[in-house]
Amino acid sequence: MGGRETGDISLITLLTDFGLEDTYVGQMKGVIAGLCPGSTVVDLTHAVQPQQIVQGAFLLETALDAFPPGTIHVAVVDPGVGTTRLPLALRARDRVFIGPDNGLLSAALPEARRPTAAARVALPPEVAAVALSLDTGRPVSATFHGRDVFAVAAGRLAAGVPLASLGDAVGAMIALPPFRGRRAGDAAIEGEVVHIDRFGNVITTVHRHDLDRLPRAVIIAGRRIEQFVTTYAEGAGLVALIGSSGYLEAAEVNGNAAARLGARIGMPARVELE
Amino acid sequence: MGGRETGDISLITLLTDFGLEDTYVGQMKGVIAGLCPGSTVVDLTHAVQPQQIVQGAFLLETALDAFPPGTIHVAVVDPGVGTTRLPLALRARDRVFIGPDNGLLSAALPEARRPTAAARVALPPEVAAVALSLDTGRPVSATFHGRDVFAVAAGRLAAGVPLASLGDAVGAMIALPPFRGRRAGDAAIEGEVVHIDRFGNVITTVHRHDLDRLPRAVIIAGRRIEQFVTTYAEGAGLVALIGSSGYLEAAEVNGNAAARLGARIGMPARVELE
Amino acid sequence: MGGRETGDISLITLLTDFGLEDTYVGQMKGVIAGLCPGSTVVDLTHAVQPQQIVQGAFLLETALDAFPPGTIHVAVVDPGVGTTRLPLALRARDRVFIGPDNGLLSAALPEARRPTAAARVALPPEVAAVALSLDTGRPVSATFHGRDVFAVAAGRLAAGVPLASLGDAVGAMIALPPFRGRRAGDAAIEGEVVHIDRFGNVITTVHRHDLDRLPRAVIIAGRRIEQFVTTYAEGAGLVALIGSSGYLEAAEVNGNAAARLGARIGMPARVELE
Repeated sequence: MGGRETGDISLITLLTDFGLEDTYVGQMKGVIAGLCPGSTVVDLTHAVQPQQIVQGAFLLETALDAFPPGTIHVAVVDPGVGTTRLPLALRARDRVFIGPDNGLLSAALPEARRPTAAARVALPPEVAAVALSLDTGRPVSATFHGRDVFAVAAGRLAAGVPLASLGDAVGAMIALPPFRGRRAGDAAIEGEVVHIDRFGNVITTVHRHDLDRLPRAVIIAGRRIEQFVTTYAEGAGLVALIGSSGYLEAAEVNGNAAARLGARIGMPARVELE
Repeated sequence: MGGRETGDISLITLLTDFGLEDTYVGQMKGVIAGLCPGSTVVDLTHAVQPQQIVQGAFLLETALDAFPPGTIHVAVVDPGVGTTRLPLALRARDRVFIGPDNGLLSAALPEARRPTAAARVALPPEVAAVALSLDTGRPVSATFHGRDVFAVAAGRLAAGVPLASLGDAVGAMIALPPFRGRRAGDAAIEGEVVHIDRFGNVITTVHRHDLDRLPRAVIIAGRRIEQFVTTYAEGAGLVALIGSSGYLEAAEVNGNAAARLGARIGMPARVELE
Repeated sequence: MGGRETGDISLITLLTDFGLEDTYVGQMKGVIAGLCPGSTVVDLTHAVQPQQIVQGAFLLETALDAFPPGTIHVAVVDPGVGTTRLPLALRARDRVFIGPDNGLLSAALPEARRPTAAARVALPPEVAAVALSLDTGRPVSATFHGRDVFAVAAGRLAAGVPLASLGDAVGAMIALPPFRGRRAGDAAIEGEVVHIDRFGNVITTVHRHDLDRLPRAVIIAGRRIEQFVTTYAEGAGLVALIGSSGYLEAAEVNGNAAARLGARIGMPARVELE
């Protein structure tokens, strides 16, 4: 369960809503470097909108496949820091996930999630999980568990400390519903806008695998998009395509679809099928 | 004084006002990687407001504790680049500090600083310091000492070159007053807004240790905050709390205190005590 | 041609227009870390304006000198992703360049470029180049070659895979005109605004070496700047100077020249000589 081979180079990713205007992310890296010198730390993003757990969970889940087995994924979008929400570390899918127990780590459980709402779900037997002890042997602030609890756990695990020694075992965690569209009648799929990227592409929770027939139109913010393409260089004006993570998105050729649509995270997205 | 053990992995931090829109930070890292391959470089932040030396010094000082002994801290907020201000490297507090002699490196001197104004102060005997030679054996531009002087010094020190070989010894440097509140009469502490973080939390120079009695109210930008909490999840509206670096800050629950208050860096912050 | 010494630490730079709001850059780093654990990845910048190939090419070219021989430079500003434009890797100037064949990698060819327009040019014999195969043994999306093609190539080259094994040899590539001013009559040089940095400094394509006589004035956006300085601390108001990469730029002392001038990328910049 724990322990890395000597000579391994640990790989740790960070995803937070801390931004880069402050030293918060740098402080987390300092703690990790102190505990596991020579580890590689990769920023997934620190631009999750403040306290947007769903967006953070989506961005974590859709980035996972780019990382090799053994990666330690730390995620901190944590409006409940310092309250009774548990700090978690879990080993699942050949990786380690570290963060608050608020749904952010849902990627660890691709199977066990409830279809329509966030819920506390039992962990499958192949997932090992602990509630991280706040008794870390170092000072723990009430407001910055990213540095004082989660980075400490990441650095220790990276250095070979066994997971089980970091806290008491837990058997359940909060998980979001899967990022998938929901069937609405025979000829429609309903989802939400879950992320808007730098190019203004409007990314929805409707996945390629939800589309058992060809789509006829995508409706976001009252606008109907009927032009389906496979690359950003095709078509003109507003188009829809399957993005690099398998999710349906709206884009504007040489433009910004989010601005054109007035789209915002959380808005409904509806797909009409042939 | 100089020399690192073979096998050590050097840890270097960067703090600048360069932003990330340009390749300036990347160029500094290229110079360091060329001089000390395999070193770890951590960004503290590059979003110090342009030429805001006091904000940069505060952000450096409050990040230090997250880093292990031996870390090399490079800081560049340098409106006087290319003029007669000295480029410094100093060994203090079990670390190395590199940057311009304009107060930015005040964290190196927690004890020796004057109480009310920036001043040239004598270095204590345990601090070794040099004025970095501009005769580095490489081209030195007039406008980018971050790359041509400070990154070169960091890379060389990381690779084991002794500090004393990088320039002539100096015995004094410019230091800012300590980041602490000042007693104003019997029942008040006066400080300033020194930083606003990504969440809009308004961070002041009043430290936990300045409060020998319970605070009754914090006044910033004419607004009086009387609700004191310990985590961001408590209370409602505007609250005050001690942040993760020990400083008093104003926050808004599920909001942006800086926007609510119209707070800006440099504004007075006053604390009334019980 | 291929192959790195065991024990070498590979150095890879990334320059894109992906921004940092998404996990795109992080995913590229995950792929590289999986293929070449322990390599060092340096961000040049990810803030190239969306699809601004010329700005990206300039920022790459002006950052090169800070990096040691052997560095692998990956650049992705790629409006034609998924179309017939070729994905390239080339070994030139003692470095490796990886990215789309759209002019972005012009820095690889300082000599062979046409004076006035982007053009397909023959590669000199000392440059080895391949069109990267899309048959990478991994899934390749139509919209994210940064992760699926370019990062894979970088990770493999960093791990010692020979360049020639990554695709078929090519003998030509698209190159931009050199970033240099053009003589206009006997007493003037014409160029363009090519980048605006975080400080609002307005950087032009007119290089120090284009100025065989002293400049009398720089004209940008209808404003005439006649004050020439050597550091940002000199003069007052709008000034012109040679920046850290050798290019003529307009700056405002304690201000933002781009805002003052209303300057934008692509605007003409004219220099009048004595």
